[in-house]
Amino acid sequence: VQSQRVSSRRWAALIAATSGVALAVSTGAQAQALKDVQTADKPLVLKAQGSFFVGGETVEQTAGELGDLGPSGHITVNQMYVRYMVPQGGDGNVPVVMVHGATLTGKSWETTPDGRIGWDEYFVRRGHPVYVPDQVGRGRSGFNQAAFNNARTGTAPATGLARWIRFSDEVVWPNFRFGSKPGEPYADSQFPVAAVDELSKQGVPDVSFGGLPNPNPTFKALSDLATQLNGAVLMGHSQGGPFPLAAALLNPGVAKGLVLVEPGRCPADYTDAQIKTLAAIPILVLFGDHRDTPTGIGIRPSWQLSFEGCQKLIDRLTAAGGQAEMLDPAARGIKGNSHMIMQDKNHLQIADLILKWIDERVVKRAAGKK
Amino acid sequence: VQSQRVSSRRWAALIAATSGVALAVSTGAQAQALKDVQTADKPLVLKAQGSFFVGGETVEQTAGELGDLGPSGHITVNQMYVRYMVPQGGDGNVPVVMVHGATLTGKSWETTPDGRIGWDEYFVRRGHPVYVPDQVGRGRSGFNQAAFNNARTGTAPATGLARWIRFSDEVVWPNFRFGSKPGEPYADSQFPVAAVDELSKQGVPDVSFGGLPNPNPTFKALSDLATQLNGAVLMGHSQGGPFPLAAALLNPGVAKGLVLVEPGRCPADYTDAQIKTLAAIPILVLFGDHRDTPTGIGIRPSWQLSFEGCQKLIDRLTAAGGQAEMLDPAARGIKGNSHMIMQDKNHLQIADLILKWIDERVVKRAAGKK
Repeated sequence: VQSQRVSSRRWAALIAATSGVALAVSTGAQAQALKDVQTADKPLVLKAQGSFFVGGETVEQTAGELGDLGPSGHITVNQMYVRYMVPQGGDGNVPVVMVHGATLTGKSWETTPDGRIGWDEYFVRRGHPVYVPDQVGRGRSGFNQAAFNNARTGTAPATGLARWIRFSDEVVWPNFRFGSKPGEPYADSQFPVAAVDELSKQGVPDVSFGGLPNPNPTFKALSDLATQLNGAVLMGHSQGGPFPLAAALLNPGVAKGLVLVEPGRCPADYTDAQIKTLAAIPILVLFGDHRDTPTGIGIRPSWQLSFEGCQKLIDRLTAAGGQAEMLDPAARGIKGNSHMIMQDKNHLQIADLILKWIDERVVKRAAGKK
Repeated sequence: VQSQRVSSRRWAALIAATSGVALAVSTGAQAQALKDVQTADKPLVLKAQGSFFVGGETVEQTAGELGDLGPSGHITVNQMYVRYMVPQGGDGNVPVVMVHGATLTGKSWETTPDGRIGWDEYFVRRGHPVYVPDQVGRGRSGFNQAAFNNARTGTAPATGLARWIRFSDEVVWPNFRFGSKPGEPYADSQFPVAAVDELSKQGVPDVSFGGLPNPNPTFKALSDLATQLNGAVLMGHSQGGPFPLAAALLNPGVAKGLVLVEPGRCPADYTDAQIKTLAAIPILVLFGDHRDTPTGIGIRPSWQLSFEGCQKLIDRLTAAGGQAEMLDPAARGIKGNSHMIMQDKNHLQIADLILKWIDERVVKRAAGKK
């Protein structure tokens, strides 16, 4: 199962060797990132912070499904964990919900791999209540373990088990577009590649490709969360990128704005009625640079195809009177952004573009100022 | 796998029927807890907050082990996620690390099931930097998925799979000592039983009984975290209750104090040398009430046995010149506390007892005032 242990210093060495740039050397596979964590100059003043759950259903399971620690009984599954921060004086501002992508958790939006402030805190400091879930099936939301225990006890065949995916460190480089090959960053890469080992630690096994109920319970949980918040901007990244669209279709009135950050795909099969519904909601789609990089994995030859699919959706929404927009920083001269754009070195510059859009398209529009 | 869906209102109904007390009715299995979340009167002023990882090792896995999304490659496993908050002006105070118990995550210490402030925030408001990990193998720390994918593809037999445990809602009542039977709380129970469905949502599958490297990587990660913090009070709960002892033995100098909250067990097999090491560290063991309740699960007939085992360890440490103490609120007239004592209705009263102990036994002692 586990094999050769590899010093993660090799990345730093590879990078230094191939880029010719002197980089801070990580302390290896046992790298301890606390020392790199930066502290802001001004305190963070919160009206409130904490966590809660949305959704979930009660199911009955056998003793074996529960791991044989006691008799059969009921547990909750498919609930969604949400952590939140509300800035002092900002509780009247539009909340922003940030949903992570595949093989990741809400950690995506927190402190960056090289220790800079996360978008979660930055949006709070800019006045927005921020809600960060873990998708159902991952992180603190948990998953339904019954099938795995049934395979173990022979109650069900193991061939029926859902697969757990992780992106290898080697796949991450081209797939997240730090460079076309592992250890060889693009000269203008905005990702903090010296801290790429810390990104590797953000990875968790992901059962969402086949191992969750259909539709994914996270869609309804996001919609319910926006309802509880009396409206929110829904932001999703990568595999979670299209989730705001799915949530908005369940309750359009509470989807004040949708921000799709490097979405894995934009659906091409919406009905005209669905397009009409989505056309009434401000939608921003954001993609970074180097989109033609071959990813090396089967499900997506390049991110340019995702970009083009989203542009088609934007065109369709526009034709229906909608106000969807593509934000392509590279086309504005902001080069080198990666798939992990919320962790890139210029992540606050990108955040400011989103915040400006929220202010103009969501806040001022709602106030009737535009 | 999933069977009968059960309205979780049954608990509230059962409780109301059996206790004769009018309780707030939950909104059912789709209960949405945000509405119950309370906000403090005063803002929370943080010098810093964020998250990072401790430890982790790089392993090479096959394409199948990675879920067949790409070729074979390396990933990081056994890292420990840590979220932290540092109060403004409190960064010179002793940090407190809070480790959760079995089938749970760091959520244990956050907002309570009925929406009150968690111990994480309370200790921050009382001046301590607080660090909340997810144990290796759970939550945002992830787990090693390779064996499960190997069983799926037939590369390894499913009979070799580690089991995942969850406590059923029925087991939780006696095991966490809300009452001797499900839905029948003790008359003096301090647990907010009307919100017990929200506790159920905190449950995640737990592979730590047989599915982790030995020793558990969390021990070393906790020790390393305390080292990075230049010393910390290590607090553990339930299955994680003895973890502070294990971490302290790895690097005693940085274990400024150990707080064992309802530890599942206190080791009885320490060598005299280990006892001598631990005797130099202030240690507090805390147990709630109703410890004779039969748990109904095999690994622990009653928590009274855990209490007695810990008393024996305290006696042994005392004989070696140590300063370990048992905190038994029931013996002081504070009745009805449960296993989830950090979520009980009087959780701040209990927290104050711990904070007083930290001040007297850790802070003042270090300052040479005692």
